[in-house]
Amino acid sequence: MGTDVLRRLSDHEDLDGVRRWLDENPPHVIADELARMDAVSAMVPFRLLPKDRALAVFEELEPVDQQQLLMGLRDQAFGDLVEAMDPDDRARMLHEAPAKVARRVLAGLSPDEQRMTAALLGYPEGSVGRVMTPEAVTLPRHLTAGQALEVVRERGAGAETVYTLPVVDGERRLVGVTGLRELFLAPAGRPVAELTDTGVARVRATESAEDAARLMRETNLLGLPVVDSEDRLVGLLTIDDAVEVIEAADTEDAARQSGADPWPGHYMFASVWQLARSRAVWLLLLIVAATLTVNVLQIFEATLEEVTALALFIPLLVGTGGNAGAQAATATVRALAVGEVRGSDLLRVVWRECRVGLLLGAMLAAVGMVVGTVLVGGDIALVVAVSLVIICSWAATVGGVMPLLAKRLRIDPAVVSAPMVTTLVDASGLIIYFLTARAVLGV
Amino acid sequence: MGTDVLRRLSDHEDLDGVRRWLDENPPHVIADELARMDAVSAMVPFRLLPKDRALAVFEELEPVDQQQLLMGLRDQAFGDLVEAMDPDDRARMLHEAPAKVARRVLAGLSPDEQRMTAALLGYPEGSVGRVMTPEAVTLPRHLTAGQALEVVRERGAGAETVYTLPVVDGERRLVGVTGLRELFLAPAGRPVAELTDTGVARVRATESAEDAARLMRETNLLGLPVVDSEDRLVGLLTIDDAVEVIEAADTEDAARQSGADPWPGHYMFASVWQLARSRAVWLLLLIVAATLTVNVLQIFEATLEEVTALALFIPLLVGTGGNAGAQAATATVRALAVGEVRGSDLLRVVWRECRVGLLLGAMLAAVGMVVGTVLVGGDIALVVAVSLVIICSWAATVGGVMPLLAKRLRIDPAVVSAPMVTTLVDASGLIIYFLTARAVLGV
Repeated sequence: MGTDVLRRLSDHEDLDGVRRWLDENPPHVIADELARMDAVSAMVPFRLLPKDRALAVFEELEPVDQQQLLMGLRDQAFGDLVEAMDPDDRARMLHEAPAKVARRVLAGLSPDEQRMTAALLGYPEGSVGRVMTPEAVTLPRHLTAGQALEVVRERGAGAETVYTLPVVDGERRLVGVTGLRELFLAPAGRPVAELTDTGVARVRATESAEDAARLMRETNLLGLPVVDSEDRLVGLLTIDDAVEVIEAADTEDAARQSGADPWPGHYMFASVWQLARSRAVWLLLLIVAATLTVNVLQIFEATLEEVTALALFIPLLVGTGGNAGAQAATATVRALAVGEVRGSDLLRVVWRECRVGLLLGAMLAAVGMVVGTVLVGGDIALVVAVSLVIICSWAATVGGVMPLLAKRLRIDPAVVSAPMVTTLVDASGLIIYFLTARAVLGV
Repeated sequence: MGTDVLRRLSDHEDLDGVRRWLDENPPHVIADELARMDAVSAMVPFRLLPKDRALAVFEELEPVDQQQLLMGLRDQAFGDLVEAMDPDDRARMLHEAPAKVARRVLAGLSPDEQRMTAALLGYPEGSVGRVMTPEAVTLPRHLTAGQALEVVRERGAGAETVYTLPVVDGERRLVGVTGLRELFLAPAGRPVAELTDTGVARVRATESAEDAARLMRETNLLGLPVVDSEDRLVGLLTIDDAVEVIEAADTEDAARQSGADPWPGHYMFASVWQLARSRAVWLLLLIVAATLTVNVLQIFEATLEEVTALALFIPLLVGTGGNAGAQAATATVRALAVGEVRGSDLLRVVWRECRVGLLLGAMLAAVGMVVGTVLVGGDIALVVAVSLVIICSWAATVGGVMPLLAKRLRIDPAVVSAPMVTTLVDASGLIIYFLTARAVLGV
């Protein structure tokens, strides 16, 4: 994959080169290159794409990028593109768009598409309703396989998928699902009811999209039926959308775990201001929390003045405690995300992490003893070694427990992970260190 | 979902209760509960499952858990289960199994299944070949839609999927793909060649499974054709396997980013020893690296003895530098993983992160100035504020660049992320702090 070829061709106004490059590359590669260009220069190659290719490329873009491209288009091209989008993709883009864009988009839609989009936008943010497709091909339960195949033949062309076919009763309540494969491989006279998996998982439209997507991963479904509070079918979560939901959730978790909000859109395209803003609040909170370490050290200032050598090991101890805490926090955040740990496991996690921390602390204490003895002498080395054992098991316990406590308090566990734990452990680690020093050195 | 109901029922030897619970719950929930029990107690409920349900549950388990369950089964049940597994799932389990288990499994297979499994195991670890399904239904390019549907009807029942149908030429070379939907909705006489997407993405069996899975996410495919070096079709990567590959890769990245190896199997089931082992190496490496901070402080020991108050801000500065570095490192690791940043973006990332760090540093300096003045006085407050600006922009730059350098050196970028960066930034941050102190205070 040539790096930035498209940008270079555009910059040199080599339109033939741009056309050739667009012909030779698949939509997702073109979308990737467009996302790396600024909105104005991305318009040039985008306008050169034939209509159907333009749609394919457009669908691969992130909502932020879609919206910026749209604003550069004239009414006709704008309307065509917006009308052709899948309703769920359109809803996702509209949600992030400024009101001005949203109004222009909605005004340009056919009444049918307008209705579907408005319905999706009515669901809460982060819910399945927002990302599902409302265009499922549903089958009445009383059909035969042959009749059902006729329904698919009639209505399949317009639907996002025909591989998951919800089966419903007379009140549009979900009975189960079948699929094109099951219908196609069965004798034509076989009742659809016999080919229907009635035990299939289902979710409410208002439930969390991330939970629904992880459920799909666990159950290996290509489409998960979405129902309303009366069990009536309202849509399908398709696997490609579920994969995007999982990836977005993992990106968000990764950002949160480093003490930052997820940055908006493409990393290379986000402005320096946007990147700084996504990190500023956390960094501020953390530095305010870190002033606690200054207070702690002030309390022990007399000890510190008496034995300055104690200061030498502050970064090492604070750093190691932070690392041990971060390891434990990351492990439980991830285990919670993929469903291996539940809120009710709190006490068991405390007990596990405390022992893991003790083991690790004992191992590190040996290193600390050697390093300390070589660099400053046996007394302080002993203080460092003993502190390491206590700090490690304390840090691992705090790190393991905080995400579970957050989960119980209905806060995103990723929020209270690595940096939060580290900062907490820093101050308490210093207290442990100086109390140990006082006890061992008798100062 | 009741918590640990199954375990409690088993512990009380309430077999009727266990049977009822097994009847009422879907396979993925049963698998989840079994994974939370130890191997011996999990055997009891597993043996109570009817044969087809047992297979469904077995397929939902992680390879480690599968292998432990298998070892508790008698030959007949063992053979049935192993023969019925999908070849790619079997290969994955065998790869992690001890040689004794692997031999017993391979010996019990039919020659056909044995051949397929051996072929998959011949591909390198982490490659697409290991996780693809070799059982695709391929269509010769010269068929009509109607003839192709006949092929699917004949061979579809045994295949993992019929929704992605690779089209091949006389030498089994991949021409493109079509799907059951396209064939089914087309007139029977239409040539398959006209229904084939010849521009479809394809990967070599030896390429990275993670890259292939991310490509599937980008292209929204349900099945990605896998070819050998001569472009002959050897299998299909199906979307459900791709989702698992992505989730496993993200779990691994999350662990690596906190300075730990991924723990083996289920978090609650891994032993305390296993958890400690997955973190020990990194923690040791990091503490050895952290002794650098002791050396740095020794160099400035005279300054520290003269102005003990300088010691008060060491954890705050070191912590903030670490946080700023971790934020940048996590952002670029993730951006690399999802393909938003490439190795060639190195200089642009340096320039972005350096400015982001400066902005953040300036903001934090204001806080540092206030806190410092209140707690210790203006002079040291000025030292802290100036140090914060320099440390933040340095930390963000190092954090942003290290993962890209790692990528260029073909090391997993996640390995050199948060804790590694933090430890590096700790020592250099102290140098910045004390040099600033000397300059400002004139000591």
